[in-house]
Amino acid sequence: MLRVMVCGAGGKMGREVVKAVHADAELVMAGGIDPSQAGNDVGTVAGIESLHIPMAASLDEVLGENKPDVIVDFTSPAIIFENAKKILGAGVHIVIGTTGLSQEQRDELAAIGKANNANCLVAPNFSLGAVMMMKVSAELAQYFPNVEIIELHHNHKYDAPSGTAVLTAKLINEAKAAANVVATEDLTRESLPGARGAKVDDVTIHSVRLPGYVAHQEVIFGGYDEALVVRHDSLSRLSFMPGVVLACKKIVEHPGLTYGLEHYL
Amino acid sequence: MLRVMVCGAGGKMGREVVKAVHADAELVMAGGIDPSQAGNDVGTVAGIESLHIPMAASLDEVLGENKPDVIVDFTSPAIIFENAKKILGAGVHIVIGTTGLSQEQRDELAAIGKANNANCLVAPNFSLGAVMMMKVSAELAQYFPNVEIIELHHNHKYDAPSGTAVLTAKLINEAKAAANVVATEDLTRESLPGARGAKVDDVTIHSVRLPGYVAHQEVIFGGYDEALVVRHDSLSRLSFMPGVVLACKKIVEHPGLTYGLEHYL
Amino acid sequence: MLRVMVCGAGGKMGREVVKAVHADAELVMAGGIDPSQAGNDVGTVAGIESLHIPMAASLDEVLGENKPDVIVDFTSPAIIFENAKKILGAGVHIVIGTTGLSQEQRDELAAIGKANNANCLVAPNFSLGAVMMMKVSAELAQYFPNVEIIELHHNHKYDAPSGTAVLTAKLINEAKAAANVVATEDLTRESLPGARGAKVDDVTIHSVRLPGYVAHQEVIFGGYDEALVVRHDSLSRLSFMPGVVLACKKIVEHPGLTYGLEHYL
Amino acid sequence: MLRVMVCGAGGKMGREVVKAVHADAELVMAGGIDPSQAGNDVGTVAGIESLHIPMAASLDEVLGENKPDVIVDFTSPAIIFENAKKILGAGVHIVIGTTGLSQEQRDELAAIGKANNANCLVAPNFSLGAVMMMKVSAELAQYFPNVEIIELHHNHKYDAPSGTAVLTAKLINEAKAAANVVATEDLTRESLPGARGAKVDDVTIHSVRLPGYVAHQEVIFGGYDEALVVRHDSLSRLSFMPGVVLACKKIVEHPGLTYGLEHYL
Repeated sequence: MLRVMVCGAGGKMGREVVKAVHADAELVMAGGIDPSQAGNDVGTVAGIESLHIPMAASLDEVLGENKPDVIVDFTSPAIIFENAKKILGAGVHIVIGTTGLSQEQRDELAAIGKANNANCLVAPNFSLGAVMMMKVSAELAQYFPNVEIIELHHNHKYDAPSGTAVLTAKLINEAKAAANVVATEDLTRESLPGARGAKVDDVTIHSVRLPGYVAHQEVIFGGYDEALVVRHDSLSRLSFMPGVVLACKKIVEHPGLTYGLEHYL
Repeated sequence: MLRVMVCGAGGKMGREVVKAVHADAELVMAGGIDPSQAGNDVGTVAGIESLHIPMAASLDEVLGENKPDVIVDFTSPAIIFENAKKILGAGVHIVIGTTGLSQEQRDELAAIGKANNANCLVAPNFSLGAVMMMKVSAELAQYFPNVEIIELHHNHKYDAPSGTAVLTAKLINEAKAAANVVATEDLTRESLPGARGAKVDDVTIHSVRLPGYVAHQEVIFGGYDEALVVRHDSLSRLSFMPGVVLACKKIVEHPGLTYGLEHYL
Repeated sequence: MLRVMVCGAGGKMGREVVKAVHADAELVMAGGIDPSQAGNDVGTVAGIESLHIPMAASLDEVLGENKPDVIVDFTSPAIIFENAKKILGAGVHIVIGTTGLSQEQRDELAAIGKANNANCLVAPNFSLGAVMMMKVSAELAQYFPNVEIIELHHNHKYDAPSGTAVLTAKLINEAKAAANVVATEDLTRESLPGARGAKVDDVTIHSVRLPGYVAHQEVIFGGYDEALVVRHDSLSRLSFMPGVVLACKKIVEHPGLTYGLEHYL
Repeated sequence: MLRVMVCGAGGKMGREVVKAVHADAELVMAGGIDPSQAGNDVGTVAGIESLHIPMAASLDEVLGENKPDVIVDFTSPAIIFENAKKILGAGVHIVIGTTGLSQEQRDELAAIGKANNANCLVAPNFSLGAVMMMKVSAELAQYFPNVEIIELHHNHKYDAPSGTAVLTAKLINEAKAAANVVATEDLTRESLPGARGAKVDDVTIHSVRLPGYVAHQEVIFGGYDEALVVRHDSLSRLSFMPGVVLACKKIVEHPGLTYGLEHYL
C-alpha cells in the first residue's frame, strides 16, 4: 500500500484529491499540508469523515521519519518548484499538476530526483479522457491528415485557443511529420476575417466561448467520402481524479521525470 | 393538377427537378427547355422513362397556347433575370433558385408579375431542413442570445463563411433586436489570430473545410448551465427537391414576389 | 416589485431558488418556509449574505398580513398538493415543480385558484432549453415526420426512457396528427431484441445510461438526403433557475392553472 | 508497379475499383472480368477514358501468361469462394470484400494460398474510417469500460443492429476482457421495452433508422465526470476505395490469409 500526502490539501483541488485517494483501495491517505488549516483534521477539511490526521503547516513537518511514498501537489505554480525540490530531495515521489514549469526547472528537478531515487510526474492535464483524446487523435492523423479542432469552453475562459487544443494540434503535427503525410492545401478564401480559425502549422483550431459549456473538444478528420470525429466532454475538475489516482500508483514504476500522463498509460 | 416546366432541364439540377416533379402525384411534368438537348425526350434526358415530350430550344416555344402554370428556373444567374421577365410577362408563375438577383431586379420582376397576375418565388436555399434550421434558430435566439455558428463544408468550397451561415446570423440578429436581447460581452483574448472566428454583428461564425463533408451547419446556443444545438446535415443537392415541389404547389396562393422559401411554410 | 417566498427553502433546490430570486432585479426575496431550519436566516441558509429574514416553520406563518405575491414550491409531491390548496386559498400565486399531480388534483387546484383570484403554474421541467427543445421539435415534426429521440443520462438514473423524452414524443405525435403527416413505415427487422428502441406511437426512443452524463437529449429528424437534429444539454439543476424566475414574473398575467412552462414563453 | 485486375468490373462497386486503381500512381489497372460486358473497354465501362483493355468474359482468360499480381473481388458471396480458389491456385494475390465466407472456407483458401505463395485479404469493411473507429474504440475501452454504441442508417437498411456495430462491440468486449475491466452494472429499469437497446455482452447498441442518413456510428464512453465519443460518418461506398487501394499495395507483404483490413494498418 502506497502512502500518499497532498500539498494544499485545504484548497479546492486538494480536498478533491484527499477524497479520491482515501476512496481508493490501493492507496493510503497519509497526510495533508496546508498552513491555513494547520492542526485541523485532513478528512474533515475535505468534507469526509475524520481521518484522525492533523493538517501539517509545512512540508518540513512531513518529510522526516514518517515521510510518505508519494506527494501530490496542485498548489500554485509560484511555489510548486520550491516544493518539488524539497520533496524529491527527501527521496519522495511527486505528482505535479501545472503547466507553469520551464524546461530548465524540469531539468533541475530531474537531476535532484535521480540523485535521490525519487520519480516525478509533471502533467498539464490529468483527465484520462483528454489524454486519450490526444493519443488517439495523433494515431488517426497518420491516416487522415486533414484535421480541424473545435474546442468549446464557458465564456468565463478568457484566452483562445485552449492549451489542450494547442497541445492536441502539436501532437497531431508531430504524428503527421513522423508518418510523412500532409493535409490537402487549404485554398479557402475568407470573406469575413477569422472564419477559417487559427492555425497551428497544419491544423486549424476554432474556439467557441458560450455560457452553458465547461470544457469540450472535437477533433475532426476528413477522409474520402467519410469523416471521423473524436469528442471529449469534461463536466468538472472531478474528471482529473482518476488520472491523479492512477499517477500515484504508477509513479514508482517510472524512474526520472515524466512529462505528460500519457506515458503512464 | 398544376402543369410544370423546367428551364435548363438538361442540366444537373434541371434533370433532378424533372424527376422530382414527375414523381409527385399533384404535379404534371409538362415540358423542358434546353437548347443543347432540343428535340430529345425530356424524360430520357433526365434518366427516367420517356415522357413523349420533346425538349424545347427556347422559352418562346413554350409560352404560347399550351403554356404551363409554373416554370422552375435553376439556370445561371446571368440569364435568369431575362428568363423571368419573359415568363412573368406571359402570366406564368416562376420558381427561381439563385442568390444573384439585386433588389432592383427583384422590384422589376415584382412589377411585371403584378401586371400579369403571375407570382414569383426567389429563394437562395430550397432545402426544407436548412430553411427550418434558420427559422427555429431565430426563434431560439430570443431566449438564448449567446449564439455561435459552426458550418462544415467540403474543402472544394473556396469561400468562408457560407451564404447560409451569414443568412442565419442575420436572421438571428434581427430576432434578437426585435426581442431586445443581447449576448454577454465577448471578453476572450485571442492568443492565435482567428481562433474566435468571424463576426456578423452579435453572432460568431466558424468555418470548417474538410474532405468527407458536403454541407452541414450547427447553431449553438449557450444558456445557464445548459446548451441547445440545432444541426442540419445536407448530403446532396437532392435535398432541394422537396422544397422545389412544395414551391410549385404553393406559388399560386402567394401573390407578388416572395423572397425565401420560409414564407411558404 | 413582486414579493416571492420559497417552500422548502432549506433544501437543495430551495436554496438555489432563494439565490436566483434574490439575484433578480425585478423580484424581492420575501421569505422561506422550512421547519428544519426554522428561525435561521433565509439568506445564510442559502449560502449568500444574511437577508435578515428568519425562516418560517410553517406556511401558516407567512400567509397572513404580510403574505407574498408568489410562492415557489419544489418540495416533495407528497406535500405539494396540501401546500398548494392553502396557498391558493390565501389568494397567493403558486409556481410548482413536480410531475406528481394527477388530473383530479390539478382540477381541484384550478377551482380553488379561480375562487381566490390566484394563479397556478405546474411544470415538470423548468429548463428553458428543454422546453424550447420540445417546442421546436413539435414544429419541425410537421415537415419531417420521421423522428427518433436519443436521450442520455447518468447511469444513476434508474428508469428509461426519461419523462422528458416521453413528453417530447407525445408533443411530436400530436403535432404530426394535427398536420396530418405520418412517418415512413418502419420495416426494420431486429436481429438483437431492443436494437430499435422503444416506441411512443410513431416516435422511437433510445435511452443511453452512462457515467459522465447529466441530462441530454437529441431529437433527430430524417429528410430527403438531409437530416435535422435538435440537441439539449443540461449540466445541472441550476439550468432550472432562469425558468423559475421567469415563471414568478409571468404568473400574474396567466389566470387559472397552466400546465407546462411553454405556455409562458 | 503492381498489376491489378478486378472481378465484376462492370458492376457498381467494380467500376469504382477500376477508377480508384487507375487513378493511383503506384498501381496499374491491368484488366477486368465481367461476362455481361465481355469485349467492351474496361475504362469506358467504368466511365473514364478508354484503357484499350477489353473486358474478359471469365477468370480463365486472365490467369495465364499475363496474369496480374493482385485481383480484387467484390462480386456476390455465392461466387467469390470459387473465384478465390482459382485465383490463389494460380499464384495470384486476392483482395476480397465480403462477410459471407465461413471459417472452413477461409481455412481452405489459406491452404491453397500457402501452397501457391499467394496471399489473401478478406475484409467485411474497407472504409479506413470504420476500421480506425473500431481500432481506437477497442483501445479506449480499457480505460473507459462503460460503452454504448449508436448506429444510424437509412431506413432502407432492414436489419438492426448493423454488422459494423456488432463487430465493434465484439472488439470492445475482447479488449475489456484482455484488460480485465468491466462496466458498472446496468441497473436501469425499462418502463417501455426496448428503450435500453440491444446487448452484445457488456456493450449496448442502439439502432436509428431514418431517411437522410447513409452509414454513421457513434461509440460513447462514459467516465468520471467526463465522456468520450468516437464518431464515424460514411457518405457513400466511395469511402471504401482508399482501403481497397491500400490493400492492393500491402497484400504482397502479408503472407497467408488475413481477416480484417486493420491488420494492414
